Amino acid sequence: MRFVDIINKKREGKSLTKEEIQFWIDGYVNEEIPDYQVSALCMAIVLNGMESREISDLTLAMMNSGDVMNLEAIAGIKVDKHSTGGVGDKTSLALLPMVSACGVKVAKMSGRGLGHTGGTLDKLESIDGFDIYLDDEEFVKQVNDINIAIIGQTAQLVPADKKLYALRDVTGTVQSVPLISSSIMSKKLASGADTILLDVKYGDGAFMQTPEEAIELAKTMIQIGKDCGRDTRAMITDMNQPLGFAIGNALEVKEAIATLKGEGPADFTELCLTAGSIILQQAKVCDDKDKARQMLLDVIKDGSALNQLKLLVKAQGGNVEQIEHPELLPQAKYVVEMNAKKSGYLAQVKALRVGTLAMKLGAGRATKEDAINFAVGIVLNKKVSNPVNEGDVIAYVHTDVPLSEEWIQDFYDTFIVDDEPCTPEPLIYEVLQ
Amino acid sequence: MRFVDIINKKREGKSLTKEEIQFWIDGYVNEEIPDYQVSALCMAIVLNGMESREISDLTLAMMNSGDVMNLEAIAGIKVDKHSTGGVGDKTSLALLPMVSACGVKVAKMSGRGLGHTGGTLDKLESIDGFDIYLDDEEFVKQVNDINIAIIGQTAQLVPADKKLYALRDVTGTVQSVPLISSSIMSKKLASGADTILLDVKYGDGAFMQTPEEAIELAKTMIQIGKDCGRDTRAMITDMNQPLGFAIGNALEVKEAIATLKGEGPADFTELCLTAGSIILQQAKVCDDKDKARQMLLDVIKDGSALNQLKLLVKAQGGNVEQIEHPELLPQAKYVVEMNAKKSGYLAQVKALRVGTLAMKLGAGRATKEDAINFAVGIVLNKKVSNPVNEGDVIAYVHTDVPLSEEWIQDFYDTFIVDDEPCTPEPLIYEVLQ
Repeated sequence: MRFVDIINKKREGKSLTKEEIQFWIDGYVNEEIPDYQVSALCMAIVLNGMESREISDLTLAMMNSGDVMNLEAIAGIKVDKHSTGGVGDKTSLALLPMVSACGVKVAKMSGRGLGHTGGTLDKLESIDGFDIYLDDEEFVKQVNDINIAIIGQTAQLVPADKKLYALRDVTGTVQSVPLISSSIMSKKLASGADTILLDVKYGDGAFMQTPEEAIELAKTMIQIGKDCGRDTRAMITDMNQPLGFAIGNALEVKEAIATLKGEGPADFTELCLTAGSIILQQAKVCDDKDKARQMLLDVIKDGSALNQLKLLVKAQGGNVEQIEHPELLPQAKYVVEMNAKKSGYLAQVKALRVGTLAMKLGAGRATKEDAINFAVGIVLNKKVSNPVNEGDVIAYVHTDVPLSEEWIQDFYDTFIVDDEPCTPEPLIYEVLQ
Repeated sequence: MRFVDIINKKREGKSLTKEEIQFWIDGYVNEEIPDYQVSALCMAIVLNGMESREISDLTLAMMNSGDVMNLEAIAGIKVDKHSTGGVGDKTSLALLPMVSACGVKVAKMSGRGLGHTGGTLDKLESIDGFDIYLDDEEFVKQVNDINIAIIGQTAQLVPADKKLYALRDVTGTVQSVPLISSSIMSKKLASGADTILLDVKYGDGAFMQTPEEAIELAKTMIQIGKDCGRDTRAMITDMNQPLGFAIGNALEVKEAIATLKGEGPADFTELCLTAGSIILQQAKVCDDKDKARQMLLDVIKDGSALNQLKLLVKAQGGNVEQIEHPELLPQAKYVVEMNAKKSGYLAQVKALRVGTLAMKLGAGRATKEDAINFAVGIVLNKKVSNPVNEGDVIAYVHTDVPLSEEWIQDFYDTFIVDDEPCTPEPLIYEVLQ
């Protein structure tokens, strides 16, 4: 088999066989096929697409390029969830304690943030001592003991994706449903869970710009899950404005704690309840949407959801006092009130721009090597469509340095007040299964 | 400027600016842009195309990536011709002496053969002592003295094309009119001639499979030539069967000599007369097609065309006796007669397969590093549509080793005799300007 013939085939719009896809992934991981051939193939895939069977074959070949977690030692149905990434997305921090409080086994591998998007691991590490590195045995034991563990992906998990993603990032070949879906699903499948809930976001702060694109990606991933015998469902959610109020690592942990006490933002709480209700059904803990929702409200009310977060933090070496007293979490030197310059309605708070503003404060990484300042970030005081009066606080900026004029200008270019009332996008566009 | 943004633009089907194209070619030649980014861009160009202005900008950027020949020291109009390559294509060896005998200045840079196609330089080197390496001064002087010089391209000519072509060859990005046309035309323009005649071949032994594809490529190259102020014209010619009878280096030199004596194959002679007539008009030696044709017949008849080949060989250190007595050219050990196994009509002699058969005898290179055996090759005794009787010689195989059974089987799979009469494709499909 010659790799150039495989490239030619895809250039001509033909389907690749399972063997050809395996040859590609094996050869690339073993460094027998060079980057310059793979990037040409990726561009041909971006432009000519892949059929459903090819995407599943690619996902499996990638999954099998490294370790595949075996979670059989955990009794019951193991659930996983994945968000395609956004700004202010602290869902795992609140949702997973909630469902684990309902008896669901949560064996979760998370990632770090890059650019304007945050990552669950970074948020957890804003808690003193929290250790995201557990070996397989510790991981399994912890899920058996307390129903929940959240760790980082090991380097041995889907090495093909690490190489491919780095290459796609610099060759203009990121935007492709077959390549995005196989990248995500290969990692989800290798993580070993029985069920997968996908939160596929659309909007200016997400990979996918429109609900239609998000639905196409979600359907493709659901099909891959089905082809591999995993119960896979998806929510299509809005990422045109940030999720909840808080953007920034420790700030988002605080908001997750508030949500677990029943005091969180309405939009974020609703997302957690909808997602949790689906997960409880996937885990067969409950077969009715409304009953599942009530179970989640109950574990918030009786404190057992928050207790799961404490158990998680304690089990992974974190300082539980910071959960009990969130004011002990890292605090920025300054909290600057940003006031509305005129009266009207908050018309636009573009997630991409807010995420970038937070990154510039130090809350995120411009490159993989950057360090994160856990304390800093932005807490919204108004959301899109809220009425504002001149002088009202529209956001609090948590910062360790005085804000530059340029940053302040960017802020006011981002938080746009208009004279006319407006309607925000619905947060949850659709649920697919 | 970030190269990934340029890739993204072309992936989205947009046009690249002159500056973006210059950034690409400069960065690639200077090794600031890696192969894996360029191959992704090339695939995006293959699939999304380029508009006429982009192709001209690319051609000029490539031309300017290295030395550009200055032929001003040669008085008069300097002509060049280029064939897109085929099997049995010894056109330069006969055509260029013919037109130079009519007073035209021929300053020609040629290439080597690869795979099933031959190269003019290899054919010339089958003449003892023939030196294809002249420096610029010697080159100019020789054209001024005897109207003709044929040399190899220097390494400094269009280095961008050398890098790009090597990359495209292994990344499935050869088949693209914008990339093929800019590759050819950048070299033609850098060679410094005032006029260019293109012989764009189609058929199974050529880059382009159909006349329509060849016409598209020819029109694109003519437009580039016009954009750069060069009189560029093109012939669209058939390469479904080999050109003339001889395939193999010394064998083709012999056939060129015969043609210069007026004793060549009808099809090859016709191609030389048509091409020569166009070149004489481009060089403004003659403004009428028929008169030009008569001039060419005259220089064949009076021996001055053959004399030009002798002057060329002598000037470049070759053994002129081999031109006067072609039997002194390298001779293979064996000449094997291949006989028809049944009576009928020769229906198919696919050029690609004949070229590959000749390459396997040693007449061509499978890889760039292979050495060539100048003596070996195949001389057809019949062409497509000729009637044959069982036992008739359909070809003579010149070989240094006994033929293997596999080779003989391949031969008979290539030279196909059918019961029904058939009509060959016309050799010259169209002339464009």
